[in-house]
Amino acid sequence: MAESTGHIIAITGGVGGAKLSLGLADLLADGQLDVLVNTGDDFGHMGLHICPDVDTLLYTLAGRSNTKLGWGLEGESWNVMDALSELSGDTWFRLGDKDLATHLWRTQALASGLNLAEVTTALARHLGVAAKVHPMTQDPVRTIVHSEEGDLPFQHYFVRRHCEPQVRGFFFEGIESARPNEAVIQLLSAGVVEAVIICPSNPFVSIDPVLQVPGMWRALQACAAPVIAVSPIVAGHAIKGPAAKMMRELGVPATALAVAQYYGQRYPGLLDYFVIDDSDAILADSIRALDINVAITPTIMRTRKDKQDLARFVLQLVGQ
Amino acid sequence: MAESTGHIIAITGGVGGAKLSLGLADLLADGQLDVLVNTGDDFGHMGLHICPDVDTLLYTLAGRSNTKLGWGLEGESWNVMDALSELSGDTWFRLGDKDLATHLWRTQALASGLNLAEVTTALARHLGVAAKVHPMTQDPVRTIVHSEEGDLPFQHYFVRRHCEPQVRGFFFEGIESARPNEAVIQLLSAGVVEAVIICPSNPFVSIDPVLQVPGMWRALQACAAPVIAVSPIVAGHAIKGPAAKMMRELGVPATALAVAQYYGQRYPGLLDYFVIDDSDAILADSIRALDINVAITPTIMRTRKDKQDLARFVLQLVGQ
Repeated sequence: MAESTGHIIAITGGVGGAKLSLGLADLLADGQLDVLVNTGDDFGHMGLHICPDVDTLLYTLAGRSNTKLGWGLEGESWNVMDALSELSGDTWFRLGDKDLATHLWRTQALASGLNLAEVTTALARHLGVAAKVHPMTQDPVRTIVHSEEGDLPFQHYFVRRHCEPQVRGFFFEGIESARPNEAVIQLLSAGVVEAVIICPSNPFVSIDPVLQVPGMWRALQACAAPVIAVSPIVAGHAIKGPAAKMMRELGVPATALAVAQYYGQRYPGLLDYFVIDDSDAILADSIRALDINVAITPTIMRTRKDKQDLARFVLQLVGQ
Repeated sequence: MAESTGHIIAITGGVGGAKLSLGLADLLADGQLDVLVNTGDDFGHMGLHICPDVDTLLYTLAGRSNTKLGWGLEGESWNVMDALSELSGDTWFRLGDKDLATHLWRTQALASGLNLAEVTTALARHLGVAAKVHPMTQDPVRTIVHSEEGDLPFQHYFVRRHCEPQVRGFFFEGIESARPNEAVIQLLSAGVVEAVIICPSNPFVSIDPVLQVPGMWRALQACAAPVIAVSPIVAGHAIKGPAAKMMRELGVPATALAVAQYYGQRYPGLLDYFVIDDSDAILADSIRALDINVAITPTIMRTRKDKQDLARFVLQLVGQ
């Protein structure tokens, strides 16, 4: 695939989407992969500007993600957290020592006047990431979870409360005035995009915020490139994270079909292909009935080879 | 001395003053020592609210200061700094992992609505410090060094530039509207203060900011308690820090006599006693000629016993 020079845009949140992005990065030529990432999870914590999805993606693409923990950096230490704990400080958001350096670096760079896109590009360079990583916007957007306990900022719901409160919906604070990532908008309108891949990330809190940034969905519609989504739900479960639990609480069955229906209703005509796992093959006809092509393959990514295999499968769908 | 219940107020900056404060804390009864500390060195760095003098004092009083480095915490590790260095981040202000926990804790506490006095009290409690530590103000005051290279924020002069630029003067940004620490003002007016001790800290950038907070000098004048200063200059040298270098650059000889003259001119009538080192005994008569009592003793504090000996000497001057 290295001979192709067309751009592939991957839209992603954190862990699952980062895995497929790594597979794509392994297969594609330098400069060919553009990853558009959710920043609705971002939050200010203890004075630091933290971008959980951007960081997960950068660490994964740098080959430095902590695969045991499922988040953060490999070989992480916890000296700051231990000291903070001695001070009876807030430790619900676990800040590893190395990870903290990223947050300090970003906070400093933003304070010096760089915008989030510039900061992310510089961080990627320092971490040795070749793929271009684009935050969905440089403006503050904050995902709020409407829960049975009231509105919760996303990290409070996700990390502090371990996704326990039942969800009733989501709201992206500040999204009305957020400007879409300009580099991605330009790419989409330049006729150089070969495919857009919606990674197996949470539709509600990872993909929706990206597509809801004003102008993003319109730019995707105007772009001729095929759009392929990979289901984040496999055999009724989310591989990682609360997607399946959220679907049940929203009164939707936790199935790949329901994900396809959700995308189909919310973004009519968006999906050209929906990739589902072998174990969900029985759902293929129902998804095809939504006027979406279905492709079936193993989608659970444990090894590096799994990631590359899924990436290869997805790219082949669009002749890459 | 434990039988006395009168309050002793120590006015201090960082290292040298913190040493004498520790000696005082060792000798005085719980609740008897109130330490009033400079916050002109405070600065915002990488999103964190850092109070170098307050922290040096707290760490010293907690018996946890790093005596090898002369700053920071004992047994410190540098994982965050190492990672920041890999990102080519700003590492001129060395943030130890444990020290960082203090800054994160403070930044979070201030963001939650506590003021700096409340935050300092809570930090002292968590660190097991019995003495009451009072920041000079809860409002932002920032020491600016007028140097031959232009105006430099204090930490840039002190840490980043290693005190290299020649100084021409100092300015305390924001001091006009700073409110003095209310607890100290109340103490000074309550007739319960037995003595005020000006620690061997830098007169220009540690003691001056404290005394220049509006209302502080007036409250000291109105208080009947004797004021004893310990010279930060011994035999023409500052034990620690740039005091002697600053004096020479300001056209003043770097002597204990010149310090006494400086205090005498800037704060007429302030000093009842000036404590000088044995090695400066020859200056005693010249200082007495300023109408200030002189007391002579070894003032260099290397060991814990040195600190206690100097503290005992100072307290005995005022019959404590």
